[in-house]
Amino acid sequence: MEHWLTKRAYLTPDNIAIELSNGETLTFAQLYERACAFASKVYTVHQNGHIAMLSNNSIDMVVAFWACTYLNVPVVFLNTRLTTREWQIQCEDADVETVIYADQYKESVESLALPTYPFADIDTFKSSACTLTTDMDLNSVCSLMFTSGTTGRAKPVIHTYHNHWSSAVASALNLGLMPNDKWLACLPLFHIGGLSILFKSVIYGMPVYLLERFDEEKVHNAIMNQDVTIISVVAVTCSRLLDRLADGYYPSSFRCMLLGGGPAPKPLLEKAKEKNVPIVQTYGMTETSSQIVTLSEADALRKLGSAGKPLFSASLQIHANNKTTKPNEVGEIVVKGPMVTSGYYHREKANKEAFRNGWFHTGDLGYVDEEGFLFVVDRRSDLIISGGENIYPAEVEEVLLSFKGVQEAGVTAIEDSKWGQVPVAYVVANEGVTAEQLLVHCSARLASFKVPKTIYFRDQLPRNATNKLQRHLLQS
Amino acid sequence: MEHWLTKRAYLTPDNIAIELSNGETLTFAQLYERACAFASKVYTVHQNGHIAMLSNNSIDMVVAFWACTYLNVPVVFLNTRLTTREWQIQCEDADVETVIYADQYKESVESLALPTYPFADIDTFKSSACTLTTDMDLNSVCSLMFTSGTTGRAKPVIHTYHNHWSSAVASALNLGLMPNDKWLACLPLFHIGGLSILFKSVIYGMPVYLLERFDEEKVHNAIMNQDVTIISVVAVTCSRLLDRLADGYYPSSFRCMLLGGGPAPKPLLEKAKEKNVPIVQTYGMTETSSQIVTLSEADALRKLGSAGKPLFSASLQIHANNKTTKPNEVGEIVVKGPMVTSGYYHREKANKEAFRNGWFHTGDLGYVDEEGFLFVVDRRSDLIISGGENIYPAEVEEVLLSFKGVQEAGVTAIEDSKWGQVPVAYVVANEGVTAEQLLVHCSARLASFKVPKTIYFRDQLPRNATNKLQRHLLQS
Repeated sequence: MEHWLTKRAYLTPDNIAIELSNGETLTFAQLYERACAFASKVYTVHQNGHIAMLSNNSIDMVVAFWACTYLNVPVVFLNTRLTTREWQIQCEDADVETVIYADQYKESVESLALPTYPFADIDTFKSSACTLTTDMDLNSVCSLMFTSGTTGRAKPVIHTYHNHWSSAVASALNLGLMPNDKWLACLPLFHIGGLSILFKSVIYGMPVYLLERFDEEKVHNAIMNQDVTIISVVAVTCSRLLDRLADGYYPSSFRCMLLGGGPAPKPLLEKAKEKNVPIVQTYGMTETSSQIVTLSEADALRKLGSAGKPLFSASLQIHANNKTTKPNEVGEIVVKGPMVTSGYYHREKANKEAFRNGWFHTGDLGYVDEEGFLFVVDRRSDLIISGGENIYPAEVEEVLLSFKGVQEAGVTAIEDSKWGQVPVAYVVANEGVTAEQLLVHCSARLASFKVPKTIYFRDQLPRNATNKLQRHLLQS
Repeated sequence: MEHWLTKRAYLTPDNIAIELSNGETLTFAQLYERACAFASKVYTVHQNGHIAMLSNNSIDMVVAFWACTYLNVPVVFLNTRLTTREWQIQCEDADVETVIYADQYKESVESLALPTYPFADIDTFKSSACTLTTDMDLNSVCSLMFTSGTTGRAKPVIHTYHNHWSSAVASALNLGLMPNDKWLACLPLFHIGGLSILFKSVIYGMPVYLLERFDEEKVHNAIMNQDVTIISVVAVTCSRLLDRLADGYYPSSFRCMLLGGGPAPKPLLEKAKEKNVPIVQTYGMTETSSQIVTLSEADALRKLGSAGKPLFSASLQIHANNKTTKPNEVGEIVVKGPMVTSGYYHREKANKEAFRNGWFHTGDLGYVDEEGFLFVVDRRSDLIISGGENIYPAEVEEVLLSFKGVQEAGVTAIEDSKWGQVPVAYVVANEGVTAEQLLVHCSARLASFKVPKTIYFRDQLPRNATNKLQRHLLQS
């Protein structure tokens, strides 16, 4: 297939690709030209192998990403909220050879043991003679993003161009495609929920209304006055938008508030219903290149709380004891489809566990009702979702256990009115170890959203017969 | 991928799949059930190999087609307007083992040297135990349709499921996908322009408003009063609809009159423009599984007469002297994309000629302007298009030459106000051969639309230096 952005710039050169809240816009022709120009500059310092990108949402980031696709260089997306130590580990795990970053991260990347270049410097490079991709090989790797596992360190998820293509197509077949569509991106582009909007934009020929981050005033204004028709949100941001909406109503052209990134509390859905907000619940994850199960608006009220049915090209089953369950019986959610990752990069063991007979085992629990609607009962039992960010207790526990004098550690979530959930830690430690010491220790090693909000000292932690930590009993 | 109809019946069981002009409807769940039931009955008489289908548009035909997909049996579509002799040749060329047909063709198929079964008889069969397809192999053959060549006999075009899937997706990315879409099918389902609507229906979850044939009153009424939003037409039927519309206007929900099947006369486009009829010009053929180049409505007026730009996943070039031409330079239209056939069935020589370096050489002439819009100058120079049906002079000439006493024959088109074009023949024959004899001879062997409207006797036919017939000089 011809390179998507090249094709889009040929099909609708003057249509808007990106719109910012300050009114700045970029057409597809301009995006194409900037991406190609940037590619020939990146090529001066990086020709092959993986490149890591560290940036908040910006036009520069979008340009830099498409530039890498023109070099056929896979992009490893780094979460800007992590610590330098976490970036270093991820760069090693994903075989990153070069890091490019938004200028504001200059100090943070200094200690990385890799060549690093800010976007602004790259812009001053001389263009190198290089061959830009004209025809995409859809089976080649486009991007890698990290997702944490139940045990051990975060795993890099491989996304091919075909994964992203299939995701964009499947979403369109489900949500429809209107000539006036404009999709607001306030989720980070380094997460799949954000990045997937960039592909939709280019494949559909649709403008993205791009915000650096979620800002309820800016989002509210964009929906009310800037003709945004679709927005991707998580429960926390959805809730804040509904509060901001107060007694008002969104314009009728606003057709979809796509709610993913974790379970949605029923009161939130009921509140949305009262205000006629077109919530479309969805279930997906990095491994499925964003949505894989989505509730259509037609069923939204009748099936409140359901994540819907699989997208047209995807398949869904619930497994328990290695068998497909009956309706309403809870089991593990397993999925299949062309948007599902081919696997984790260089993680043979994890791949063997997750992919069996062509099905991806999500580790999440749920059931389907008689009509085939999915109800997610619980994300991977120990997964904590805080403001849309995934926190795996095992990773935080590992950091706590690395502190001298800590004998046992268990991390679990408590409800939080702002973030949905926040992590707290239960620790068995030698005398003299203080909560303050542990928090300092964690803050130096973990993204701030992963640092436990409270540390409780205990004489022992609940464990089962095989001595496995029972996290669900920590709070009892 | 799960079988499309199974998946659709699961996703939106109660949505309308097919609507007839008498008000009869079939939901996706009903279509699924009928197709599965019919499949197990067909299986009683046909398990493997190609099946030919002879039918005008009807629910029975749609059910029978999907039934074959559940048996993974490729369907060879026969044009109902052909003669028994032509069907026999096509069945042989496509390795057909069984013919199933609409009851009205009972007499016509009697002399076919193959097992033949009317739909009604099959319905009375006992169901056989058989395994219906659950997961489609997208690379397997779904359908075969005949297209004539510039020389020799008609060639069976292979369509895989992947071709049809790619066509439906590419069309949606270009035309958009509205929740209220309803596509009127009045083109025969045995032609790709008709059949492709069935795939769109199931993949999009969209109702098809199915007519047995083009009937301007019924079509007019469906657009005016039955919420049809899209219709596929050819120039002749488009013109008749515009005449029927007279001084009226279509409702604003009617969003697309997709005009394909040959060049559109400019006066017709201008007339449509005056009446605000949303004509969307397209270029495609059996080999491209319907549309491959389509003009967006946004460009319709600015680029009147253009067929548009290639669909997102398709590519277009103009070749002359084995090189890509400059803008505005006429050459052969060559295309590439996942909707393009993998080839003609058992036609090695034709495949070698048509497919070179991954590009399909259409034989049609055209150019692209500076912005990349395609203008079709002429369909394959000798192709005659009469009411949307293709007529290849070579085939008609062959039949004329088989009449004792005919020494030379040349067939060309004259303009016709009703059909666009009709064929006429120029013949060099021994004394005593009459036009009446030749017409009787042709009528026994050719579909009526292929029979020359007039036969002119000449002393010699125009030929070039290598003695090749110069059809374009026949009328001079």
